[in-house]
Amino acid sequence: MKEIGAGIAAGLAALAASYGNGHVISKTIESIARQPEMSSKLQSLMFIGVGLIEAVPIIAIIIALILVF
Amino acid sequence: MKEIGAGIAAGLAALAASYGNGHVISKTIESIARQPEMSSKLQSLMFIGVGLIEAVPIIAIIIALILVF
Amino acid sequence: MKEIGAGIAAGLAALAASYGNGHVISKTIESIARQPEMSSKLQSLMFIGVGLIEAVPIIAIIIALILVF
Amino acid sequence: MKEIGAGIAAGLAALAASYGNGHVISKTIESIARQPEMSSKLQSLMFIGVGLIEAVPIIAIIIALILVF
Amino acid sequence: MKEIGAGIAAGLAALAASYGNGHVISKTIESIARQPEMSSKLQSLMFIGVGLIEAVPIIAIIIALILVF
Amino acid sequence: MKEIGAGIAAGLAALAASYGNGHVISKTIESIARQPEMSSKLQSLMFIGVGLIEAVPIIAIIIALILVF
Amino acid sequence: MKEIGAGIAAGLAALAASYGNGHVISKTIESIARQPEMSSKLQSLMFIGVGLIEAVPIIAIIIALILVF
Amino acid sequence: MKEIGAGIAAGLAALAASYGNGHVISKTIESIARQPEMSSKLQSLMFIGVGLIEAVPIIAIIIALILVF
Amino acid sequence: MKEIGAGIAAGLAALAASYGNGHVISKTIESIARQPEMSSKLQSLMFIGVGLIEAVPIIAIIIALILVF
Amino acid sequence: MKEIGAGIAAGLAALAASYGNGHVISKTIESIARQPEMSSKLQSLMFIGVGLIEAVPIIAIIIALILVF
Amino acid sequence: MKEIGAGIAAGLAALAASYGNGHVISKTIESIARQPEMSSKLQSLMFIGVGLIEAVPIIAIIIALILVF
Amino acid sequence: MKEIGAGIAAGLAALAASYGNGHVISKTIESIARQPEMSSKLQSLMFIGVGLIEAVPIIAIIIALILVF
Amino acid sequence: MKEIGAGIAAGLAALAASYGNGHVISKTIESIARQPEMSSKLQSLMFIGVGLIEAVPIIAIIIALILVF
Amino acid sequence: MKEIGAGIAAGLAALAASYGNGHVISKTIESIARQPEMSSKLQSLMFIGVGLIEAVPIIAIIIALILVF
Repeated sequence: MKEIGAGIAAGLAALAASYGNGHVISKTIESIARQPEMSSKLQSLMFIGVGLIEAVPIIAIIIALILVF
Repeated sequence: MKEIGAGIAAGLAALAASYGNGHVISKTIESIARQPEMSSKLQSLMFIGVGLIEAVPIIAIIIALILVF
Repeated sequence: MKEIGAGIAAGLAALAASYGNGHVISKTIESIARQPEMSSKLQSLMFIGVGLIEAVPIIAIIIALILVF
Repeated sequence: MKEIGAGIAAGLAALAASYGNGHVISKTIESIARQPEMSSKLQSLMFIGVGLIEAVPIIAIIIALILVF
Repeated sequence: MKEIGAGIAAGLAALAASYGNGHVISKTIESIARQPEMSSKLQSLMFIGVGLIEAVPIIAIIIALILVF
Repeated sequence: MKEIGAGIAAGLAALAASYGNGHVISKTIESIARQPEMSSKLQSLMFIGVGLIEAVPIIAIIIALILVF
Repeated sequence: MKEIGAGIAAGLAALAASYGNGHVISKTIESIARQPEMSSKLQSLMFIGVGLIEAVPIIAIIIALILVF
Repeated sequence: MKEIGAGIAAGLAALAASYGNGHVISKTIESIARQPEMSSKLQSLMFIGVGLIEAVPIIAIIIALILVF
Repeated sequence: MKEIGAGIAAGLAALAASYGNGHVISKTIESIARQPEMSSKLQSLMFIGVGLIEAVPIIAIIIALILVF
Repeated sequence: MKEIGAGIAAGLAALAASYGNGHVISKTIESIARQPEMSSKLQSLMFIGVGLIEAVPIIAIIIALILVF
Repeated sequence: MKEIGAGIAAGLAALAASYGNGHVISKTIESIARQPEMSSKLQSLMFIGVGLIEAVPIIAIIIALILVF
Repeated sequence: MKEIGAGIAAGLAALAASYGNGHVISKTIESIARQPEMSSKLQSLMFIGVGLIEAVPIIAIIIALILVF
Repeated sequence: MKEIGAGIAAGLAALAASYGNGHVISKTIESIARQPEMSSKLQSLMFIGVGLIEAVPIIAIIIALILVF
Repeated sequence: MKEIGAGIAAGLAALAASYGNGHVISKTIESIARQPEMSSKLQSLMFIGVGLIEAVPIIAIIIALILVF
């Protein structure tokens, strides 16, 4: 049963991180294309955002790794 | 059965945190791109928001960790 | 069976809190970016709203914790 | 079987309360940002609305608690 | 099996009541913010509406309570 | 098995009644806010509508009650 | 197994009737609010429509009742 | 197993008929409210349409009835 | 198992026919209300369309009937 | 097991054909109502389209028939 | 088990082909109604498109046929 | 179990290819109808796109074929 | 069990690649139709994008192939 | 059970990466087509974004590979 649990956790974590990152990064690209003079500010905000979003999925990935071994 | 419970809890928690964070951060980037003079205020609001959103998912992650060990 | 119940409860509670908080906080950021002079009022309203939203998910998390132990 | 029933009831109740509250509170914030002179009226209406919405989910949470013990 | 039935009934009833109430109350707040002179009429209509909506979910909650005991 | 049948019937009936009532009542509130001079006509139409909508869910609730006893 | 069949049939029939009725009645209220001079015609059409919509769900309810006894 | 088959068939048939009828009747009401001079033509078209839509669900209901007895 | 297969086939066939017919007939009513001078042409096209749509669901209903007997 | 396979195949094939046909025919009716002078061309294109769409569902129906006998 | 596999493959293949064809053909009808002078070009493109879309579903249908025999 | 795996793989591959191709081809038809002078360029791009989209589904179909034999 | 795992992995990978490729390619066709002078740049970007998108699905396909043999 | 876990993890990871990449790349192509003078900046941002998005899915793929061997 342990492997199915790991599969569900890893799969949903990947889905979660890609959903959140995809929205933030595509919104950043759209905003920079409109206001090129703000690109450094928005780009640093994007990196912070990606970091905040990936916090919980990475713990979920670690739980999946613990379940595997 | 314990591992599937941990997998469901960790996966849904990751999905939850990424959904909420993704919306808040992309809305912040959009708003700062429109009103650059408000960037410090909105950015601090964003950090508070991310903190409030991640409260419940992190408890769910801890429940998943307790279920694993 | 007890662990799957805890996993479902914790996962759905995290999804619930993030859904509600994500909508309220992103709407607050959007409103403050439009009317900066109202930021203190809207921000205090946001904290009340987040508190009201997290009431039921936190009880659900406690139920999940009771199911775990 | 009793624990899965409790988990479903608690999780769906949390989802329900957050869905309803999230819509009402975000609509209140949007409306106050547009008409600041009506903030006391709308805010008291919001508290009544949140109270009415949480009535049924809290009974569902109590059912979940009865199922746990 | 009885507990799962109670959990499904209680959870769906909570979801139902919150969905209906959330729509009616947020529409009332939006309408009052536009026409403040009609607030007493719309507010009394809102209370009638919430009462009508909660009729069936409360019977479902009672069925869930009967299933629990 | 009888209790799960009752739970499904009661939960779906509650969901059904709240969905229908929520749409009709929120549309009535919206219409009265626009044309206050028609409020008595629309309000009586709303009561008829709620009565017609709740006919089938209430029979489903009665079926659920028969399944419980 | 018979009770689950009855529960599914009754629940889906209630959902069906409320979905159809909710759309027809809310559209009638909206149309009468715009053209009050046509209210008698549209109201009689609404009653015919509700009768036509409830034909099949009521037979499904009767099938559920037969399955119960 | 026979009763579950009957329940699925009856429930889906009710859902089907209400979905189709709800769309056709609400569109008719909307159209008559805009062009009252065409009401007899559209109303007769609506009756034909409802008859055509209910053909297949009624056969499905009959199959459900055969499965019950 | 045979009855569940018949139930699924009959239910989905009813859903299919109502979905297709509902779209075609409501579009016809809308178009005739706009161009009343074309009503005979569009009405005959509607009958052809309904016949073409119901071809496959009726074979599926026949398969369900064969499965029943 | 064979009957459930036939039921799934027949039901999904009916759903598929009605979805595709419903879109094509309702689009044709809409287009002819706008440009009546093109009705013969569009109508013949509609018959070709319906034929192309029904090719695969009819083979699926035949597979369902083979599974039944 | 082999028959359920065949049913799933045939049903999903029919759904796939109808979804793709329905979109392409309805878009072609819409485009020809707007630019009648391009009808031969668009019609030949439509035939190529339908052929390309049906390639994979037809192989899936063949797999379903192999599973049946 | 092998046949259900083949059925799922073949069905999802067909759904995938039709979804992707349907979007690309209908967009091409729409674009050519607007700019007929670019039809050769867009048509060759469409063929490349269809080829790229069908790469992975065809491997999935081959996996399904391997599972069948 | 191994074959169902391979089927799920191959099917979802095909769905994934087609979803991503379909969006990118149809957006490229739309953009080239608007700005034909940029076609070489956008076309090379499209090839890079398709390559990046297909990276993970192809590894998933390879996992499915490993599961098959 | 191990193979199903691997299949779920690999399939969801592929779906996740393609969803996120598809959104980011199509948004980049759209933005470059509007502002060709910013193509180098947006293209480098796109590569960073794709890298950030693929981080978690690739770990999920590795978990799937570990589950396979």
